[in-house]
Amino acid sequence: MTGWLEQMVEVIADRGRELLGRRGDAGAQTSTAQLCRTLLKGQGEASGIALAREILSRFQAMDADQRLEFFRLLARDFGPDLATMQTAMARYAKTEAAADLARLAVAVEPPRQELFRRLNMAPCGTVALVALRGELLRQLKAEPELKAVDVDLRHLLSSWFNRGFLRLQRIDWNSPAQTLEKLINYESVHAIHGWDDLRRRLMPDRRCFAFTHPAMPGEPLIFVEVALVQGVSDSVGELLDPDSPVLDAARADTAVFYSINNTQLGLRGISFGNFLIKQVLTELRAELPELATFVTLSPMPRFAESVRAAAAGQLQDLSRAQLAGLIEDHGDALRAASGEDDPVAGLLRPLAARGGAGEVLRAPLGSIALAYLQLRDERGHMLDPVAGFHLANGARLERINAFADPSAERQHASFGCMVNYLYDPDEVEANHEAFVASGRVALSKPLARLQRQASGTAEA
Amino acid sequence: MTGWLEQMVEVIADRGRELLGRRGDAGAQTSTAQLCRTLLKGQGEASGIALAREILSRFQAMDADQRLEFFRLLARDFGPDLATMQTAMARYAKTEAAADLARLAVAVEPPRQELFRRLNMAPCGTVALVALRGELLRQLKAEPELKAVDVDLRHLLSSWFNRGFLRLQRIDWNSPAQTLEKLINYESVHAIHGWDDLRRRLMPDRRCFAFTHPAMPGEPLIFVEVALVQGVSDSVGELLDPDSPVLDAARADTAVFYSINNTQLGLRGISFGNFLIKQVLTELRAELPELATFVTLSPMPRFAESVRAAAAGQLQDLSRAQLAGLIEDHGDALRAASGEDDPVAGLLRPLAARGGAGEVLRAPLGSIALAYLQLRDERGHMLDPVAGFHLANGARLERINAFADPSAERQHASFGCMVNYLYDPDEVEANHEAFVASGRVALSKPLARLQRQASGTAEA
Amino acid sequence: MTGWLEQMVEVIADRGRELLGRRGDAGAQTSTAQLCRTLLKGQGEASGIALAREILSRFQAMDADQRLEFFRLLARDFGPDLATMQTAMARYAKTEAAADLARLAVAVEPPRQELFRRLNMAPCGTVALVALRGELLRQLKAEPELKAVDVDLRHLLSSWFNRGFLRLQRIDWNSPAQTLEKLINYESVHAIHGWDDLRRRLMPDRRCFAFTHPAMPGEPLIFVEVALVQGVSDSVGELLDPDSPVLDAARADTAVFYSINNTQLGLRGISFGNFLIKQVLTELRAELPELATFVTLSPMPRFAESVRAAAAGQLQDLSRAQLAGLIEDHGDALRAASGEDDPVAGLLRPLAARGGAGEVLRAPLGSIALAYLQLRDERGHMLDPVAGFHLANGARLERINAFADPSAERQHASFGCMVNYLYDPDEVEANHEAFVASGRVALSKPLARLQRQASGTAEA
Amino acid sequence: MTGWLEQMVEVIADRGRELLGRRGDAGAQTSTAQLCRTLLKGQGEASGIALAREILSRFQAMDADQRLEFFRLLARDFGPDLATMQTAMARYAKTEAAADLARLAVAVEPPRQELFRRLNMAPCGTVALVALRGELLRQLKAEPELKAVDVDLRHLLSSWFNRGFLRLQRIDWNSPAQTLEKLINYESVHAIHGWDDLRRRLMPDRRCFAFTHPAMPGEPLIFVEVALVQGVSDSVGELLDPDSPVLDAARADTAVFYSINNTQLGLRGISFGNFLIKQVLTELRAELPELATFVTLSPMPRFAESVRAAAAGQLQDLSRAQLAGLIEDHGDALRAASGEDDPVAGLLRPLAARGGAGEVLRAPLGSIALAYLQLRDERGHMLDPVAGFHLANGARLERINAFADPSAERQHASFGCMVNYLYDPDEVEANHEAFVASGRVALSKPLARLQRQASGTAEA
Repeated sequence: MTGWLEQMVEVIADRGRELLGRRGDAGAQTSTAQLCRTLLKGQGEASGIALAREILSRFQAMDADQRLEFFRLLARDFGPDLATMQTAMARYAKTEAAADLARLAVAVEPPRQELFRRLNMAPCGTVALVALRGELLRQLKAEPELKAVDVDLRHLLSSWFNRGFLRLQRIDWNSPAQTLEKLINYESVHAIHGWDDLRRRLMPDRRCFAFTHPAMPGEPLIFVEVALVQGVSDSVGELLDPDSPVLDAARADTAVFYSINNTQLGLRGISFGNFLIKQVLTELRAELPELATFVTLSPMPRFAESVRAAAAGQLQDLSRAQLAGLIEDHGDALRAASGEDDPVAGLLRPLAARGGAGEVLRAPLGSIALAYLQLRDERGHMLDPVAGFHLANGARLERINAFADPSAERQHASFGCMVNYLYDPDEVEANHEAFVASGRVALSKPLARLQRQASGTAEA
Repeated sequence: MTGWLEQMVEVIADRGRELLGRRGDAGAQTSTAQLCRTLLKGQGEASGIALAREILSRFQAMDADQRLEFFRLLARDFGPDLATMQTAMARYAKTEAAADLARLAVAVEPPRQELFRRLNMAPCGTVALVALRGELLRQLKAEPELKAVDVDLRHLLSSWFNRGFLRLQRIDWNSPAQTLEKLINYESVHAIHGWDDLRRRLMPDRRCFAFTHPAMPGEPLIFVEVALVQGVSDSVGELLDPDSPVLDAARADTAVFYSINNTQLGLRGISFGNFLIKQVLTELRAELPELATFVTLSPMPRFAESVRAAAAGQLQDLSRAQLAGLIEDHGDALRAASGEDDPVAGLLRPLAARGGAGEVLRAPLGSIALAYLQLRDERGHMLDPVAGFHLANGARLERINAFADPSAERQHASFGCMVNYLYDPDEVEANHEAFVASGRVALSKPLARLQRQASGTAEA
Repeated sequence: MTGWLEQMVEVIADRGRELLGRRGDAGAQTSTAQLCRTLLKGQGEASGIALAREILSRFQAMDADQRLEFFRLLARDFGPDLATMQTAMARYAKTEAAADLARLAVAVEPPRQELFRRLNMAPCGTVALVALRGELLRQLKAEPELKAVDVDLRHLLSSWFNRGFLRLQRIDWNSPAQTLEKLINYESVHAIHGWDDLRRRLMPDRRCFAFTHPAMPGEPLIFVEVALVQGVSDSVGELLDPDSPVLDAARADTAVFYSINNTQLGLRGISFGNFLIKQVLTELRAELPELATFVTLSPMPRFAESVRAAAAGQLQDLSRAQLAGLIEDHGDALRAASGEDDPVAGLLRPLAARGGAGEVLRAPLGSIALAYLQLRDERGHMLDPVAGFHLANGARLERINAFADPSAERQHASFGCMVNYLYDPDEVEANHEAFVASGRVALSKPLARLQRQASGTAEA
Repeated sequence: MTGWLEQMVEVIADRGRELLGRRGDAGAQTSTAQLCRTLLKGQGEASGIALAREILSRFQAMDADQRLEFFRLLARDFGPDLATMQTAMARYAKTEAAADLARLAVAVEPPRQELFRRLNMAPCGTVALVALRGELLRQLKAEPELKAVDVDLRHLLSSWFNRGFLRLQRIDWNSPAQTLEKLINYESVHAIHGWDDLRRRLMPDRRCFAFTHPAMPGEPLIFVEVALVQGVSDSVGELLDPDSPVLDAARADTAVFYSINNTQLGLRGISFGNFLIKQVLTELRAELPELATFVTLSPMPRFAESVRAAAAGQLQDLSRAQLAGLIEDHGDALRAASGEDDPVAGLLRPLAARGGAGEVLRAPLGSIALAYLQLRDERGHMLDPVAGFHLANGARLERINAFADPSAERQHASFGCMVNYLYDPDEVEANHEAFVASGRVALSKPLARLQRQASGTAEA
């Protein structure tokens, strides 16, 4: 499937390069704009498919600068006409008639949106448009006025990748190598170290599920990796050990969601994760009725960065000040552990290098992490995006694991800490409501106690 | 597949009926509005799926009056807010900023459009929404203000049923009975008289292709039936005879597209036919290189109706006057054939009953039909929708078959006449351009000659 | 799948006919023998496939007489050599060595068996060989010396159609029309009257399962039709009524196996039925745990024939005498019902024509049927093959339904009677053992009582 | 598929181990024999499946000694009865009747053959029986009297794995990882060094085809690897280089079959290779009409061993003497190259170590290899099994590549030499006939010339 798809994309790209070679660059660029206009003018005839294919293949053959030019073209020449919009607005304001509303909607919708719809008719058009948006997002940082183009693409893709069109697919060792290879490439939470590592992650005591879209066969859009274990893991070591013994899945009581990955830059901002987690939860309960606990083992991507900023006094708002206070509170313990003046220095040492002294850090780390996980930024968004995701989904902040991941990467990002978020089917709705309505974070009993102690300390 | 799908739909409907039973009707109706609001307020959480399912199942359980109420609700309460739109318009007019354009687009888009997107998340949501639009179209005639709702549904479905998402599928005797049964039910050009008739239409010298959509598995959205023959057929008799001998497909030189059917009322106005014909043409040329001629055998659905109106002097515009003129010109021949005063009377007699005298009618019928097929209505649309479709697709008006179909139905609709439109791959683009740009109709040489004679006569 | 298969068979046949046409008949026949010898002499080279195809295509092009000649050729020229066998026998008797046993086995195996194995290499070879055996069985009656050929074919097919190679397949309304059409053609217990009748038999309260073989895709070798109902049916009327209401399968407590059909004459004597029934039973229990009773509604194919023979005094052995005795015992009742001298006359009247008087026949019919169902022929085989099949499978003789099927066919074959055999998973093994070991027939309590009464009567 | 299959096998094995644990070993062994007898006595009832599963699961749980005991049991207790055979023989000799021949066949067939057929009914029975024969073959060397058991297993498997039941399957990067992993494990001609190496072998300028059997899904029984190249390769280096550039397959003129592997020890002696090569050849010609040359790049597994034996004077027959003569003839050149007294010493040096001096060896190596490739052993079999295979298939000995493979393994086995056998579709049949009938080996023109020179030398 995907073989064919990728081959098609390549074939299109090849042809595109040939064309660009044949004509001069400038000529080709002019002409691409012209092709877009012709495509837009058409009335849905089949020849539009050939046009769409030609335009997409040209795009694929372009280098970064040419693509930027193309995006500028879309931003500049394929936007809506202000005067038309105003006329339509005025008319609708007078009549409030359905037909006039329809006309207004047409006037407001930038023509490039219809252009994208028509480009989608090309073979593998959807694949190409998702890739095109990926490229656009890369260039957006340097050229924010392209935002207008992104608004339209995102609107369209959001409609096309509606949950109703996605398919849940189980991935295992019997899946096509082509798909499995993508997992290796896409996994960014816990890198997959080659095929043996992957194989262990697909054994009978592991599960992997992905959403796919019919127009992108063989391409996992998002995937989650689950370990079936006995008791909640507080460390990734055993979960990721390729030589760990394989458990009989029927005897597991806990499902650990230890990695969730979005794979398509071009679908950024179009959220699938909440649907995926809950549907996988449903699947697992149906398959393995003995499972009683559903928990993540999640990273804290900005923990160390925030702590360092707080300790350095680079505080931008109240909440970070709070973090700095906590660090100060635990300053003695932190300094004792590191034997240095800088309270954060000890945290930065590798877990392995800390030795017995490391244990001293567990309590301070836990307290600081608990505070960090509830911080919000100036716009009110959760500072930690992973916490924001799971708490909004209705999970409970269950446990903070101080020394969960000894990898250099995790040590750097979060002093080796990881978090368990727990999904209790009976609580999920209420937690979600409370979090969305009033920002209240659901805490496990031990964490609630810790929180109360911390406030007590703070108040005292 | 579809079995599961239809079962789901039914299960949903059943549940809906239970719910409606449990509560009072009025209460339920109120509450459905409330559910819609809750669904709209949500932020993409998985529980939205359950809400969507509930709303759709309620809709399916409603009777026609309740559905009308629901449509009115959508029209009244889920439209855009005029003041918000105006504010957004004013702001964008000032800044012309991307973000403000995005806000304006949001303000202009009626909330029911997002509601439909969220309803689509339910299992079989797309199937349900297509059915819902079908129902809406039925009620639209009596209540035109529902048009606003239809504009939104059509916009969405048009995007979701983009050509890029459709799949061409060959249907043959090895297809699921469930799908084949739908052909029997949906065929409206030449009714399929049971399974034996269907079986003949799927034999090795016949082809049947359909477009399907991934969210409506097993459901042909549009299908075309093709007969592989030697020489262009001028009558449906042999094509449809269930006992006709089966030709070796490799020896056919002509493909006759003798029936095209759209199957979903809920997709009316979203055109697939042009794509289908051209892709099938491509498929057939690849499979059977001996095929040299691609021609339709098409009905003339409003021929008799128009002739009668013209003859009765109920003329609304110039073009029909022209038809009346032609009838007058051929009046003697027509009266001679019928032996009556009314020139149309002879045409109305069954083919079988005309006997040898019928032959006299061939020439006048041909001339009048040729004129009719090129008439346009007051809005400039082709009077004959089938002619409009094929000519806009780039086909050529090839031949008029005066006595092609002796069935009572066809006799009533077009005096038994049918038309061949010919698709010449080398001409299609040029024909299409000429027709769209200047309304020029491509004619075969004999028809062009006939046309010249007719104008000569007219001028003389 | 099957389309391809059947097309292949036809293509092969066509080529065969061409070849036969080209050469003279006699020449072709000689030459087919020669081809067979060449095929046998080969050492497994790929060219054998072409030879095999050629031979099979010739066979398919032959008429009945030519086929008979071919069978005679196989019987005469491809048997084992007596002298070689005797030498090998003598040698093995002396050495009892493995190698000598292997040589003896080779000497005893007729060369035609290896010929059949090599013919199987042709595309669709297995399909062709099963058809060839079907033809052989048809000709066997007239020419019993062909039995030797059949022994070899049956031995081979029995090995190739080993239970381990068969696949259970559920057939429903979503199955290919091509497969469904075969059900219509093959069903011989209760004829399927067209597609509407078939459709009812595949609705959610019905099940149909078949065994297929990988080398005969799309071809059901044996299939069973099951009705899911509430309570044990004693009449086929409701079961077969195409307009009967559809029950929610989850609410059924009883599965009635109302039709089992072997479809391939060429596989006669190779038994699948016992495996099919028990696997279907397992499937149904897994899918629908509410099912408590598994029962057949079976015909009694030789009942009327046997009764007539017994009444006419054409008795060949003891058991039939016993039947005659029973008829005599019930003679008064039977004569009273018919009002004629012949006690059987009343039974032969259509159910409908019997009116109220028919009821009188119920008891005598039951007693006679109970005796009949336990009769054995001179070789010790059960007289009623259906009873023999189910009782050997471990079923219990549950109930005799005197007026179960009013069809003319059933009236003729069994006075309209049908039988329920009941499969009780807990009893099946014991019943089977007792039946095989000592011929004991498992009876339901009411039938056991009836049996005791009858013996009491007999003894008295 | 296979996942399920292997899981099943494991589940069966687990259960078997449990059973063996429960009972004493001896008791279990006795009892397994008893179970086999019970299974054999049955009359095809469904309960046989449970018995078969039990026996196979016990076998899988046995250690090597227990398995040997089981094989002895089969050899001793499940062979045919001599007296019965003799009686049947005598009777058939008298009557020559079909029924008596059938009885004789039954008497001669060892009961274990029917036992194997019944064991095949278990889930994954075929997989288990192939594994069982693999184990038997391992033990056969030490205990030749088990040969009798193998004769029966081989006879059965040969019938079940008839070419007509095999399926050609293309394997590529879209195949299940589970299947691909098997390629890595099974490849023994040119070891696959991990997934990247495999991936290169499945790129668009490579092909891999396998035969599979429906009862062993996902399991390649034999597979061939093909490189599409320009010009005939004389060295494996480029073919196997994972970093070599990928050729556009449409531009290749030559297909090099560089590796063929049988994967199942348990199917030894049941030949698929000839069918596979020729069917792949057909597939490739259909897909890529530009391909003009089909050639292998094959190992010479016993070359070095034979040369050493010949040089050491360990000659057992005429043909090896001939080899010794050739070595003697080239003795001076060989000694010159090595600078040692032993003429073979130079050949044994690694290719890399030979330096320029190595080139001197090319001609002598070629002559000796040409002679070697045509040697036969005392039973008339080709000494080199690979040569025997391809020449019997109708290939031509095309070219001897003196320094084709520098790997230590190949250096050890054949002084680094490899051979091209060429399959010319127009010659294959004639070559095959000549080779089988008269032992004549087809040689390319250069090799024929070399052969004539060598004979000239020899004669002179």
